[in-house]
Amino acid sequence: MASPSQVSRLAVRAALSAGRKASCRAPARLAPIVQARSWSSSQPRRAATKKVKLTRETYPELKRRDNFAQVTAEDVDFFKSVLGSDSAILESISSPAAEADITPFNSDWMNKYQGQSRVVLRPESTEQVSKILKYCNDKKLAVVPQGGNTGLVGGSVPVFDEIVISLGRMNKIQSFDDLTGILVADAGVILEVADQHLAEKGYIFPLDLGAKGSCHIGGNVATNAGGLRLLRYGSLHGTVLGIEAVLPDGTIVDDLSKLRKNNTGYDLKQLFIGAEGTLGIITAISILCPQRSPAVNVAYLGLESFDKVLQVFVEAKKKLGEILSAFELMDSRAQNMIRIHRDLDAGVLEGDHPFYCLIETSGSDADADYKKVEAFLSDIMEKDLVQDGTLADNQTQIADLWSWREGIPEALGHFGGCYKYDLSIPLRELYQLVDDTRERMNKAGIVGSTDEFPVVDVVGYGHMGDGNLHLNVPTRRFDKKVEEVLEPYVYEWVAKRNGSISAEHGLGIAKKPFIGYSRSDNMLGLMRMVKNTFDPNGIMNPYKYI
Amino acid sequence: MASPSQVSRLAVRAALSAGRKASCRAPARLAPIVQARSWSSSQPRRAATKKVKLTRETYPELKRRDNFAQVTAEDVDFFKSVLGSDSAILESISSPAAEADITPFNSDWMNKYQGQSRVVLRPESTEQVSKILKYCNDKKLAVVPQGGNTGLVGGSVPVFDEIVISLGRMNKIQSFDDLTGILVADAGVILEVADQHLAEKGYIFPLDLGAKGSCHIGGNVATNAGGLRLLRYGSLHGTVLGIEAVLPDGTIVDDLSKLRKNNTGYDLKQLFIGAEGTLGIITAISILCPQRSPAVNVAYLGLESFDKVLQVFVEAKKKLGEILSAFELMDSRAQNMIRIHRDLDAGVLEGDHPFYCLIETSGSDADADYKKVEAFLSDIMEKDLVQDGTLADNQTQIADLWSWREGIPEALGHFGGCYKYDLSIPLRELYQLVDDTRERMNKAGIVGSTDEFPVVDVVGYGHMGDGNLHLNVPTRRFDKKVEEVLEPYVYEWVAKRNGSISAEHGLGIAKKPFIGYSRSDNMLGLMRMVKNTFDPNGIMNPYKYI
Repeated sequence: MASPSQVSRLAVRAALSAGRKASCRAPARLAPIVQARSWSSSQPRRAATKKVKLTRETYPELKRRDNFAQVTAEDVDFFKSVLGSDSAILESISSPAAEADITPFNSDWMNKYQGQSRVVLRPESTEQVSKILKYCNDKKLAVVPQGGNTGLVGGSVPVFDEIVISLGRMNKIQSFDDLTGILVADAGVILEVADQHLAEKGYIFPLDLGAKGSCHIGGNVATNAGGLRLLRYGSLHGTVLGIEAVLPDGTIVDDLSKLRKNNTGYDLKQLFIGAEGTLGIITAISILCPQRSPAVNVAYLGLESFDKVLQVFVEAKKKLGEILSAFELMDSRAQNMIRIHRDLDAGVLEGDHPFYCLIETSGSDADADYKKVEAFLSDIMEKDLVQDGTLADNQTQIADLWSWREGIPEALGHFGGCYKYDLSIPLRELYQLVDDTRERMNKAGIVGSTDEFPVVDVVGYGHMGDGNLHLNVPTRRFDKKVEEVLEPYVYEWVAKRNGSISAEHGLGIAKKPFIGYSRSDNMLGLMRMVKNTFDPNGIMNPYKYI
Repeated sequence: MASPSQVSRLAVRAALSAGRKASCRAPARLAPIVQARSWSSSQPRRAATKKVKLTRETYPELKRRDNFAQVTAEDVDFFKSVLGSDSAILESISSPAAEADITPFNSDWMNKYQGQSRVVLRPESTEQVSKILKYCNDKKLAVVPQGGNTGLVGGSVPVFDEIVISLGRMNKIQSFDDLTGILVADAGVILEVADQHLAEKGYIFPLDLGAKGSCHIGGNVATNAGGLRLLRYGSLHGTVLGIEAVLPDGTIVDDLSKLRKNNTGYDLKQLFIGAEGTLGIITAISILCPQRSPAVNVAYLGLESFDKVLQVFVEAKKKLGEILSAFELMDSRAQNMIRIHRDLDAGVLEGDHPFYCLIETSGSDADADYKKVEAFLSDIMEKDLVQDGTLADNQTQIADLWSWREGIPEALGHFGGCYKYDLSIPLRELYQLVDDTRERMNKAGIVGSTDEFPVVDVVGYGHMGDGNLHLNVPTRRFDKKVEEVLEPYVYEWVAKRNGSISAEHGLGIAKKPFIGYSRSDNMLGLMRMVKNTFDPNGIMNPYKYI
C-alpha cells in the first residue's frame, strides 16, 4: 500500500491535472446558505424579478393580529424626529415611490418569503433603537429586526406590515483587545469584516459560514448560528461574553461585558442568543476570539461503510486531538452530483466509494501538525478503515478539496427544486435516516432517472463532527406526493431519536410548526412564559418562532 | 545563558533534592476552595466543634420572611409519604434527636454560615423532587437546594429554617457516549467520580476544581463553576448541552439534550447555569466532554515585572496555541509565604523574582508538545522576558510545580484570618489592584511584621489566563479598621474598570449586597423579573443572590 503522503500527492495532482478548476475558498463558502432551506422552490438570486408569492398566501392560516396598529403618517413623523435623517427611514406611507426601495427588506435572499411592510427604520445608535421600540410598544406597532437578511427560515422578513428595523447602519467595531482576544462590535458589523479585522491581529472570529460576506454578527448571535468552526471553537453560548440589547419597552440590556468570568446574577444575555429577535433587538456584542491557526491541513478520504466513518471519527478525535477543526461527511451520491455538475470524468479519488470524509486540522505548528496528520492517515489505512485518501499539499488543493463539500448544495439545486432538512441526530444513527428515506421513496415509486419520476435522488451530507445531517431530496418539480412521503415522516424519525428538527438554522416561520417534534409541552410552555415576560404585547417578530 | 531544558532539569532537581517533599497532585488541589472565602474568620475543618455564629446573627439586617410557613408534623408526614423511606428524611420536628444529623446540612465547610433548618429531604428521583417542590410551593415552605455543600459564599445552607433538599442520593451516571464524548448524569454525582469515569474512556470532564472530591456536578452547574480548565475548555455555558430541572411549581424542565446543535426555541437551560438554585433545582445534566490529553507539560517562570508577564502571556498564546491549558500568576509574596510555611531555604528558582507564572500545556503528542514548549521557553528567554525558569520532567515535578500555585491559600491561612476577593479585572490592570491596595494599607499604617499590626501582607495571584485575580490580605486578627480600608474600596476599584466582584464563586449570601458594583439597575431589574416569573412565591433559596 502506498504511504498516505504518496497517496496524497498522487491523487491530488491527478485530480488537479485532470483539468478541474481549483476554486478559491472564500467564494466556495456560499454553500451553507444554500443548503439551508427546508423547501426551496429553486429561485436563485437571479430570479429576483419573478413575482414571489406573499408569505400570507403561502401560510393562509396566519392572520394579521387584530391588536396591532397600522403605521400612520403621525408615526412616520415620530420616527423621522428620532432618526434625524431622511435617509434613515424608507416609507411608502407619505412617499409611495419608496416602495421599490423597501422591496429588498420585504423579501429574503431566496425569494421564498415576501412581506408587505411599508416602513423600514435604520437607526444608528442604541438610543435610537430604544426610542423606536418604546414607541412601537406603546402604540402596539409590530416590528421585525433585520440584520444581513441571510436567514434561511424566513425569520428576518415581515409577514404582514410589520415595521422593519434594520441594523445595517450600526456597523462599528468598538474595540479589540489583542491581549485577550475580546472583540466588541455593533450588531450590524458584517461577519467577514469582523473576521478580516481579527485576521490582521492574528485572531479569528469563532464562527464562519457561507453568508459571511453579508450576514451581520448581531444576526449570527440572534440566530445562534452554527457554521464551520463549531467543532473546534464551540457554540456562541460559550464564546459570546456580553450583549447589548433593547427590549420592547425601550429598556437597554447593558450587559456588554468584556470579562471571561462574571458570576454576578442570571446570565440573561444567553436568552437573546438564538431568540431570533423575539425578545428584543441585539445592538452590540462582545465575543472571545481565539488565536488564528497558521497551519491548516485537509485530508479527503473514501470509505466503504458508515460504520468505518464512525471508526475514523473516533481515531481522528484521538490522534488529532486539539488540532481537529472539521470532520465533514458526504455520501457517494452527493459527490457524484458534483462530478456530473462539473462535467468531470472522475471525482477526487479513483473509483466510487459509498462515503467520503473531509478532515481539517488547524494548529500552530506546521511541521508537527503535518506529521500528526500523516501518522493518523497511515494508521487508519493500516487498519483498513479507509479505501483511499488524499492530503492537500497547498492552499489551492485545500480549497479544491473543500469545494467538494461546499459545492454540494449548488450541484443539487439544478434539477428544479430540493427538499432540504437540517437535523441533529445521535451520531451512530446519523446516516440511517438517509437510507430509510431513500427506501421509503423508492417504495413509493417516485424516484427515478427519467422525467416521469419527481424525485432525482436522496442525498446525505453534513457536519459529522457536530452530529448535524443535511438530508436533501432533489426533485424535478414540485409534487404534493413527495412532500407527503417526506413529512411528517422525517420529523417523526428524528423525534423518535430525540434529535433536533433544526440543528443550526433556527425556527423563523418555516420551522415554527414543527418545534413540537423537538421540544416537550413543558418546554414550550416555559418558552411562552419567557416570551410574555419580555414582550407582553407580542410586538417582536410576530407569527414566528414559537 | 543555559538552554531552557538545562535550566529545567537543574532547577527542578535542585529544588527536589533540597528536601522538598513532592506532593501528590490530587490532594494539592484543595487550594481553590480555600482561596475562595471573602472573609474567613479562619475556622479550618478541625475547628468544626467550635460554636459557630448563626447566619441570622452575622446578618442581623436579614429577617425571616413572614409569608413563609413553618414546617409542621403534617408536612413531615407528606414528605415521608413521597420519599417512601425513613432514611431519606432527617427532621427534628417529630425526632428531636435527629438534630445532630442535621447539623452538617446547616453549616458550610468553612463553618462560616450556620442555618437552623429542622428538615433535610434526600430525594432519589426527579419525580420526588417535583412532588416535594410543588408541595412546598403550595404551602409557602422555603427550600435550599444542596449539592456537595462546598460553596464559598454561603449559597447552599439555610439562613433560617428553610428545608434542605439534598441531591446526594441522585448520583447515577446515566450514560456516556464514547463516540461523541457526551455524558449524562444525575446532579448528585461527585465531580471526581464523573472525571474518573471519563478518564477510563480517554475523556475528561471540562471542569476541574479543588473541591472535586466532594462537590456535585449539579452544584457545579448551578454555580457556573470556573476552576482550572476554563482557559482551555471554556465555560459551562458552552459545554453543558442539556439540563433537567424542577421548578418550584413542580414543572419538570425536561431539556436533557444530547445534541451539540439544537436551534429550536429559547435556550432556557442557560438560565439555570449560575442561578444558584434560585429558579429551580437541577436534577441532571448532559455535558460535552473533550478527549483527555495524554501529554502534559508544566513550566514555572520568574519575571521581573507585570508588564513582562503580559508579554509572556501573549507569546504563550501565540507559540503554544491550542495546547495551552493553564496560565497562572503568583506574586513574590505569595511564593515566599509558601517557602516560609514549608520551612524551605529557597523557592523553585534561585533568588527572588517579583512575579512567577505557571504555564501548563495539554496535548495529544508528547514529543511535539515538548519541543513546542522548549522552543517557546527559548524564545522568551532570548527576548529577556523571563529571568529564570524551569520545565518539569515528570509527573512528580509537575505536581511539585503546581503545589507552588495551589498551596498559596493554605500558606496564607495560618496567621489568624484572611480577607479574600475573587475578581475579574481587565487583564492589563489585573495586578494594579494589588499594588494600589498595598499602598492604601501601608498609608493606613496597619501592615507590618510585628503583632501590633493587624495586616501581615497584601498578596495577589490567580487565573491570569481568565483575567481572574485573587486578592488576599492575610491578617493576624479581625480588626474593623482593616475591613474599612478594604471595603468598599476594592469593589469601587473593580467597578470603575467594569470588572466583576465575583468572577467564579457566585453571590450566595456573601456577595449579594455587592452585586450593584458589577451590574446595572437595568440588569438587576430584569433579573428580579426573571426570578419572579419562575419563582413567584420566592421559596427557592431565599435571602440570597439578588
